[in-house]
Amino acid sequence: MGKKVAIGVDLGGTNFKFGLVEEDGNILKKDVVEVAGDRSINGVIALIVSEIKKLVASEHDVVGLGIGMPGIVDRKKGIIYKSPNYFGWVDAPVLDELKKYFKMPIVLDNDANMVALGEHWLGAGKGVSNFLMVTLGTGIGGGWIINDKIFHGDRGFAGEIGHIIIDFNGVMCNCGNRGCLEAYASATGLKRMIKDWEDVPEKSAFVSKLNSSIESISPIEVFKFASDGDIFAGQVWKKFGAYLGAGLASLVNAMGIETIIIGGGLTKAWDFFIDPTLKEFNKRTYKEIAEKVRIKRTELLDDAGVLGAAKVIFSC
Amino acid sequence: MGKKVAIGVDLGGTNFKFGLVEEDGNILKKDVVEVAGDRSINGVIALIVSEIKKLVASEHDVVGLGIGMPGIVDRKKGIIYKSPNYFGWVDAPVLDELKKYFKMPIVLDNDANMVALGEHWLGAGKGVSNFLMVTLGTGIGGGWIINDKIFHGDRGFAGEIGHIIIDFNGVMCNCGNRGCLEAYASATGLKRMIKDWEDVPEKSAFVSKLNSSIESISPIEVFKFASDGDIFAGQVWKKFGAYLGAGLASLVNAMGIETIIIGGGLTKAWDFFIDPTLKEFNKRTYKEIAEKVRIKRTELLDDAGVLGAAKVIFSC
Repeated sequence: MGKKVAIGVDLGGTNFKFGLVEEDGNILKKDVVEVAGDRSINGVIALIVSEIKKLVASEHDVVGLGIGMPGIVDRKKGIIYKSPNYFGWVDAPVLDELKKYFKMPIVLDNDANMVALGEHWLGAGKGVSNFLMVTLGTGIGGGWIINDKIFHGDRGFAGEIGHIIIDFNGVMCNCGNRGCLEAYASATGLKRMIKDWEDVPEKSAFVSKLNSSIESISPIEVFKFASDGDIFAGQVWKKFGAYLGAGLASLVNAMGIETIIIGGGLTKAWDFFIDPTLKEFNKRTYKEIAEKVRIKRTELLDDAGVLGAAKVIFSC
Repeated sequence: MGKKVAIGVDLGGTNFKFGLVEEDGNILKKDVVEVAGDRSINGVIALIVSEIKKLVASEHDVVGLGIGMPGIVDRKKGIIYKSPNYFGWVDAPVLDELKKYFKMPIVLDNDANMVALGEHWLGAGKGVSNFLMVTLGTGIGGGWIINDKIFHGDRGFAGEIGHIIIDFNGVMCNCGNRGCLEAYASATGLKRMIKDWEDVPEKSAFVSKLNSSIESISPIEVFKFASDGDIFAGQVWKKFGAYLGAGLASLVNAMGIETIIIGGGLTKAWDFFIDPTLKEFNKRTYKEIAEKVRIKRTELLDDAGVLGAAKVIFSC
């Protein structure tokens, strides 16, 4: 037998990431697949199976398979109750499906939980017993590390921090409710804020782009315009940051946890939102608490989810 | 030596409660002192000392002293950083002061944490490994039981749930920030909502009372008017309940904890706010989560804090 490896899988909104991970965290092989087509359960399961077959060779001693995916995941039962990116996945028995193909330990969990565990193992959360992991992407993911372990709550649903209420009579969120944090401080929220902006300045390259194609605008573009010095694009990130800061203040006030790690695609715009985030955070927490809180940036970047999913297996 | 007892003390906004508690939770003796006068550290310490001397007799084998009080309490250091009801208590070294008088183990903690532990020991949280304790009084207190223990966060400050943000641009809270839950769903919030109410109906006994003395109105009076069928008083509790429901939804979404216990003086009005609370809560949580959550009423009522403070000592 060869080296002991765990398979870590991170199912995102647009990309599926796969990695063969050694016990020391070294990623032996990895692969990223853009998922444009079939999002049915069978389609996704088939893709996972074929990708893993490509990754694994006879020299690998595979000890298990960890999978992180967005949504409400019941880790014990291996069921996805609901997932924002996989329409029609209701009470999906993903674990049972995968067991038909793999005779090894398999663990499913929410993707932000896996990211949190990855950062705890090898990243910005190394040596930190308690922290909140925040992933800023299409939506907002959250994972709690408490006493050096993922905290799942009673049935595995902890960390739906995108749906804390930040504005009682606020805008509609994709979840059907009003004023959720995700309706402001996510890619979806960013786009929504731009559409709803009341006093858009008249002249700028960014505004011209918005006027011609607001539907297709992406956070990366808003970031690029801000980087090029566009003042309105900068204001958008500032507002995004303020809402994020208020949301993080709520969570720190509630839980007394003093480390927050922020990851996800939108951290690219870190320099544009972090100061407004900190300003609002400090305003909305007691001084005695605020002065000890560290808001850190992901260290593992895109690998955090795959590493965390593998770590779940090594910790079994 | 006689029976083993712990002294449990619950320092509230208007009353200090003292109890001699046996290991099985039986309260041998108790005393309640209304604290109208001196709130200096020395004054409060002197009162605690004299009350405990009255309670304890030679036949008692006192194993320790537990004290719960509102505010930001550093349990390890025994320091109160700040307390809403004790102006001028900044970085107050309460533990060191008490040690001058008592040669026994002494534990200080936030009052809502003590209440949570009391309910976990003998009340509505018996046998429940994870729950959130909410105390509705002048302000809102919060205590988390996680894995059958008080969860303190990193330095003991977990549970400031009165200061989660529920309305980004909302009304001012006593803490200096805007839109905190406490500015709506507490005695302070109730009074503030009544003052700010926009379309007060013209005729009712409650409205007459408000017109003559709005400053002196108490939650108990609002409760009594609602009990007597006053429609406006009922509407006030309904709004109170809706905000509470949104706040609890935020906390359940964030933590995935499926039991909430509500205590504190305002639970007297339970029948008037609980339906709006549940309605708003259900609206703002995923169905899969909401259907499993139990929102329960305190079982230990006014004794919860004293019992929890004693339990801390028995668990040392």
